[in-house]
Amino acid sequence: MTDVDYCVVGGGFAGLTAARRLKQAGRTVTVLEARDRLGGRTFTETRPDGSWIDRGGAWIGPGQDRIRALMQDYGVASYKQYTDGEAMMLVDGKQYRYTGTIPWSMSPWVAMNLGAALLDLGHLCKSIPLDAPWTAEQADRWDRLTLAHWLNTHVVSKAAHELLETAIAGAYTSAASEVSLLFALYQMASGGGPGFVLGIEDGAQDSRPVGGMGAVYCPMAAELGDAVMLAQPVRRIRQDADGVTVFSGKMTVRARRVIVTVPLAIASQIRYEPILPVDRSLLQQRMPSGAIIKISLVYDEPFWRADGLSGQSAAPGSPATITIDACTDTGRPGVLCVIVEGPIARQIGRLDPAERRHTILDALAERFGDKARTPADYIEQNWSAERYSGGGMLSHAPTGVLTQFGPALRAPCGRIHWAGTESSAVMCGWVDGAVRSGERAAEEVLEHEIVTASAARAPRPE
Amino acid sequence: MTDVDYCVVGGGFAGLTAARRLKQAGRTVTVLEARDRLGGRTFTETRPDGSWIDRGGAWIGPGQDRIRALMQDYGVASYKQYTDGEAMMLVDGKQYRYTGTIPWSMSPWVAMNLGAALLDLGHLCKSIPLDAPWTAEQADRWDRLTLAHWLNTHVVSKAAHELLETAIAGAYTSAASEVSLLFALYQMASGGGPGFVLGIEDGAQDSRPVGGMGAVYCPMAAELGDAVMLAQPVRRIRQDADGVTVFSGKMTVRARRVIVTVPLAIASQIRYEPILPVDRSLLQQRMPSGAIIKISLVYDEPFWRADGLSGQSAAPGSPATITIDACTDTGRPGVLCVIVEGPIARQIGRLDPAERRHTILDALAERFGDKARTPADYIEQNWSAERYSGGGMLSHAPTGVLTQFGPALRAPCGRIHWAGTESSAVMCGWVDGAVRSGERAAEEVLEHEIVTASAARAPRPE
Repeated sequence: MTDVDYCVVGGGFAGLTAARRLKQAGRTVTVLEARDRLGGRTFTETRPDGSWIDRGGAWIGPGQDRIRALMQDYGVASYKQYTDGEAMMLVDGKQYRYTGTIPWSMSPWVAMNLGAALLDLGHLCKSIPLDAPWTAEQADRWDRLTLAHWLNTHVVSKAAHELLETAIAGAYTSAASEVSLLFALYQMASGGGPGFVLGIEDGAQDSRPVGGMGAVYCPMAAELGDAVMLAQPVRRIRQDADGVTVFSGKMTVRARRVIVTVPLAIASQIRYEPILPVDRSLLQQRMPSGAIIKISLVYDEPFWRADGLSGQSAAPGSPATITIDACTDTGRPGVLCVIVEGPIARQIGRLDPAERRHTILDALAERFGDKARTPADYIEQNWSAERYSGGGMLSHAPTGVLTQFGPALRAPCGRIHWAGTESSAVMCGWVDGAVRSGERAAEEVLEHEIVTASAARAPRPE
Repeated sequence: MTDVDYCVVGGGFAGLTAARRLKQAGRTVTVLEARDRLGGRTFTETRPDGSWIDRGGAWIGPGQDRIRALMQDYGVASYKQYTDGEAMMLVDGKQYRYTGTIPWSMSPWVAMNLGAALLDLGHLCKSIPLDAPWTAEQADRWDRLTLAHWLNTHVVSKAAHELLETAIAGAYTSAASEVSLLFALYQMASGGGPGFVLGIEDGAQDSRPVGGMGAVYCPMAAELGDAVMLAQPVRRIRQDADGVTVFSGKMTVRARRVIVTVPLAIASQIRYEPILPVDRSLLQQRMPSGAIIKISLVYDEPFWRADGLSGQSAAPGSPATITIDACTDTGRPGVLCVIVEGPIARQIGRLDPAERRHTILDALAERFGDKARTPADYIEQNWSAERYSGGGMLSHAPTGVLTQFGPALRAPCGRIHWAGTESSAVMCGWVDGAVRSGERAAEEVLEHEIVTASAARAPRPE
């Protein structure tokens, strides 16, 4: 039995941030991580040549101040996402090259449709109160409509529709028919609007930490030292009048309070004693994760750059749906990242590995030439097959869920507090949101000490 | 380690039916039930005076032949739901009495709206292929719309809208905004259309087994004898080339195959080794249960009958949303059943028990007079607070789920087979559907024996 002030479930950015805050405040803490690695839905792999691959969350953008602050604490620099040269769109068997965010070269009609839809969405986003999207004036209406319905009724051009569906529903790693319009608006608004979500320069994919996300979470874990326990999947949390007992397979941690930071579908697999309040346990049944496969292809050099290409491409319906340059700050070796999301991720996930690799390389060769066929390394991360992620990248809310269960996203249940990017009002769905949620949860438990202490009319001994 | 031919997880109607089939076929079987009682989402309590209360699923209707067949096997008679006298609707603070299904007395306008909506829904239901609703011609369109959206755009009268929302979304024990139109149509179609779902005479609430549902599941369990193990929550299922190992807290069962019959959200709490295919594990994150509280009030006699009332009432928005006569076949004592579903169930579930009781009795007194205030017994069943139900009555599909993940509802995952009313193409959501699913799953595993035996070119020793 380990006895600490606070226990944290999950060693991703939310959990490590919360634990670090509590340690900085002089409290003892134990972090229980189910996997044999840290980082949660980020996962940096260092290669023998010293370069690194982000197998999960990778980017940062303007306004993401809390992950920036962590980087500053640990002296981690950032570097700009490579955007020189032309990007590519592949629609209806045709290839279009363009620069900037909107592919004007495709057709003015498509570009106009895209632009108008982004303006519309941006306008709707403005009326969402981030800390309580369920109180938006139109919340009830938007929460009984799906993102798919909105796209269907507001985007006339088929190509523009496909591109937006790929870009927006893709972010939820699910079909657009699965996602509540209210949730999509809220999530986009929490990042500053649809331009931020889709944008690269000045958007959510603006920059990356030098060394990858691991350059941030590794020193955080090091700072926490032996407070962080790996391979400890939490199976049961019992709370009583004096504290909580958290059981993993092998460890038992006794603490005053616990912060659970895992995705909602994973949180629902823990046995809570007593049972959670109905709203929270039903919420945990209602915010599923999606399917995403991220493939990193390593080449001797980023040959596409020499060909005047940025490496960025979007091809709705293709197994290599999205590509983006994923080189380190040195630009060597060449790393191209393929992101496949939602229905197509499930589809190609069913292929055998050799067949999938072949399919992906074929698609890349069509875009970037034959050099793409012979990567030195091919690293595949299928997040939906990860037991302790339950999918990726973020849990989305189907229709009706935010208006019915929204407040349960953050409301503590007795001595159990909730963190994780899904619980963040700002930058919900990004690494930065995870950091913010960890900070907020740590503050919550510390505030409870003051409440408890003043209730006992005696200060807590330091 | 218990060694049997087959293991069944869950001792509700699906599990007991499957186990019984397998035993009848000469196979050995173990049923692991998490609770200390059987019946799953049905639960019959026998009172000291010999009368019984169904705290969960209670009714049967025409076309529900498989539960009927079980009743015949065990010599269980049925009796008609009491429908004599007037039913009541309470809308906008006014009380309307009527007989039949449509409350013509309310206003011709409302009645016309109700009738037209039911005709429309019935028409849509006809084009749903029950065994694969995701292949309906309009499947994609209906699956990106919510039931709430359909009601909003098709039912003009506010009162008719409220009544339909209460009746239909109520059946899914969730808000109408949470439910896919395709799922609602499919579920209604699987019972024969909206008339069946809403109807009492000749509908889903036509009759009840004498002795309650327990009169059927108890003899089934008795027939299975010590094959049925209570208080064995299954935590882990491991499959290998030769069979499965099923772990509960205290027991380990080794079998050739396992049939999992629990609701999807509960099935997602089991640890599967190896991890389930992505489509199944994501489906299990996507079909949540709802909130339902069923309250049985026992009086010396059914005083409402003498007053010319059937006991049936519907009051959208009221904490006692629906009432129905729930006497046994003898009509003594008087049992009135209150059913509260979805958002209102969660709302009154948060009251303390005394306050909730007071609220319910107040509402009943307004409808049935002061005699309703003094029941001899007050029995409350909050299904959403039941750990091993995860809610009630059936798991619904949010938008996009059937078209994306529908086939995973029934597709076996290696040696794991799936049952439970949600997996039944016919009578999905009723006890009869649970029975059918148990029969289908038992057939599946027996068919696998033939396949395996013919593959080995040698008949399996009997």
